[in-house]
Amino acid sequence: MAVIALLTDFGAQDHYVGVLKGVILSIAPQAQIVDIGHGVPAYQWSAAQFLLQQAYPYFPPGTIYVAVVDPGVGGTRRPIALHTPWGYGVGPDNGLFTPWFPQADAVVALTHSRYWRTPSPSQTFHGRDIFAPAAAYLAAGVPLRELGEATDITTLAHWSPPPPQPTAHGWQGTIQYIDHFGNLITTLPANVISPDCRLQVALAGHVIPWGRCYSDVPVGTPVALIGSHGYVEVACHQGNAAQFFNAKIGDAVALVLSP
Amino acid sequence: MAVIALLTDFGAQDHYVGVLKGVILSIAPQAQIVDIGHGVPAYQWSAAQFLLQQAYPYFPPGTIYVAVVDPGVGGTRRPIALHTPWGYGVGPDNGLFTPWFPQADAVVALTHSRYWRTPSPSQTFHGRDIFAPAAAYLAAGVPLRELGEATDITTLAHWSPPPPQPTAHGWQGTIQYIDHFGNLITTLPANVISPDCRLQVALAGHVIPWGRCYSDVPVGTPVALIGSHGYVEVACHQGNAAQFFNAKIGDAVALVLSP
Amino acid sequence: MAVIALLTDFGAQDHYVGVLKGVILSIAPQAQIVDIGHGVPAYQWSAAQFLLQQAYPYFPPGTIYVAVVDPGVGGTRRPIALHTPWGYGVGPDNGLFTPWFPQADAVVALTHSRYWRTPSPSQTFHGRDIFAPAAAYLAAGVPLRELGEATDITTLAHWSPPPPQPTAHGWQGTIQYIDHFGNLITTLPANVISPDCRLQVALAGHVIPWGRCYSDVPVGTPVALIGSHGYVEVACHQGNAAQFFNAKIGDAVALVLSP
Repeated sequence: MAVIALLTDFGAQDHYVGVLKGVILSIAPQAQIVDIGHGVPAYQWSAAQFLLQQAYPYFPPGTIYVAVVDPGVGGTRRPIALHTPWGYGVGPDNGLFTPWFPQADAVVALTHSRYWRTPSPSQTFHGRDIFAPAAAYLAAGVPLRELGEATDITTLAHWSPPPPQPTAHGWQGTIQYIDHFGNLITTLPANVISPDCRLQVALAGHVIPWGRCYSDVPVGTPVALIGSHGYVEVACHQGNAAQFFNAKIGDAVALVLSP
Repeated sequence: MAVIALLTDFGAQDHYVGVLKGVILSIAPQAQIVDIGHGVPAYQWSAAQFLLQQAYPYFPPGTIYVAVVDPGVGGTRRPIALHTPWGYGVGPDNGLFTPWFPQADAVVALTHSRYWRTPSPSQTFHGRDIFAPAAAYLAAGVPLRELGEATDITTLAHWSPPPPQPTAHGWQGTIQYIDHFGNLITTLPANVISPDCRLQVALAGHVIPWGRCYSDVPVGTPVALIGSHGYVEVACHQGNAAQFFNAKIGDAVALVLSP
Repeated sequence: MAVIALLTDFGAQDHYVGVLKGVILSIAPQAQIVDIGHGVPAYQWSAAQFLLQQAYPYFPPGTIYVAVVDPGVGGTRRPIALHTPWGYGVGPDNGLFTPWFPQADAVVALTHSRYWRTPSPSQTFHGRDIFAPAAAYLAAGVPLRELGEATDITTLAHWSPPPPQPTAHGWQGTIQYIDHFGNLITTLPANVISPDCRLQVALAGHVIPWGRCYSDVPVGTPVALIGSHGYVEVACHQGNAAQFFNAKIGDAVALVLSP
């Protein structure tokens, strides 16, 4: 019973996610469908890339990930599927799967229309007509190579967040994601920190104390810590750091290491 | 393993959807429950009708659709279930299932209290006490006719969106649904368009260029196209057409055909 | 096939709920995962307590409830699991499970790290690293006592909403929950009412007529009734009582009984 995990910007209001599931169950009735989430901000496949990276390590091996944040649907960008040691990815060729490319051992463009839902797919909903069917056929045992033309990874769209930069006293990064709680997840990975350092995080002119968990500081006040994502995170205990700092994705965050 | 597909205006905040699922699994543990969606605007069963029409063609034959947008719950409107060639519908008799009536071969009012969750159902939550149990019993193999009194389709509440009107140079329709992306789905079906026509769509005094997919126009600008729903749709490439045009459901949309 | 029911304040935007499911399926592939809901207001475990109380009677016996509204994660509050006649509860020791304590026959602190996802759990996401694994191991047949140290219920955090108070002419209660429709659910239970009483509900200086269902009053006007929760509820027919009365959780509600 293959797991098919769905990640989209389709939201909760409409029928779009339900239709993906209907299509999948029509082809692969035994598939186990799981939502990673459908609240990716509209069109922001960079946010989807972050969420996919955060989610896939926790799913069973062989999971089929359908990630559809796809403003270029129907245009020149290709629909693709790829295979990695941890499972399959299915979605648009817009850079969303970039972190998987180094370990991907096969990529196809989804060009074989016999595995589409219809030979005349909608030009605005490849999720329904191309991606969901591809995932369902993979779940039903169709080999990846049957779904379309083998494709060279070097021809795919690539995108990565800007890497942290070293500074005189530490590192400079940015906010790469803001979650539902208003927690600010930076691009600064946990491994830039050594246990014997004193740490300060600076954001928008504020210096933020370092902690181990949210409740290390009084309710409503900010704290910097290593979040569950493995990155430096700025939060407010029982509050909303995004509102506290009026912060947005891309804002600069400085990490000062005082050995 | 029957599929039970749920469509409600219950939202994501509360326990109501979870309770439907608990009730279903208590009666039919093998049922496969799928959410079509729970973000129908509160009380708007006309929007639910649209979403159900858009979803059901993509589900497996025999699916049991539970559609509960039901401001008249506990009053005089009847709880009903009906059978069609593509599956069952279960919900309130308020017009939500109107498009299914021509092909429905059986309708019952859900009057048999032995198939309710309790002989004293809540007057505010028939989803929990009448509709979810009915769907679960259907999934468990109880025949439709066992659930209540056979009912004549002509006695059911009917509702349909206003049909498009021909004009001197094309068609006049309205916006029948606005999705999460702000896309404006009109009542103008794809088949009013012929391939050799030049097309213009007018909305709120704007003339909107015709396209094949969203990315046919520059980012942030509007485009009219045939959407995945099979209707003329007005969108903004990576934007929000509802905000761009300050549009709402019911607004007039003119389609001009220039042969 | 055990049912695992999830209730959190994780929202719909992020990957957190999906990750819980991935962790569960990695340990217990046969588990049937159901969402009670993830829209609990951030950090408000008192609201989660209400929702859990409203949901659990409708789930199959033996269901494993994972309830994570946990602002104290990583601090001194303990992760716990408990067993009751209706199933298991798994979550933080912050009072969320208080109503279950009188019937709980076993409680453990989740101290045995061999049943965590990792011996070094995140200090900000015990849902992923401790609670979801505990639920999955229970679903897979691991006995509760294996998960950690037996714990005395009297040592657990307790919290209950303020009980209604008798008045000269009836009862005084408060609003304990406001749902997606803006319905105001009070702390006044149905059993304070006798069938031969005339009833009035007073809120914020308004006297609200009593009804049996929402449509007993004109569209847009308020009504008080016994809601599906078993409490006195104030609603507006096809409207939003929270907006109508500018009401919030904790506001006083008076019930006047006129025999």
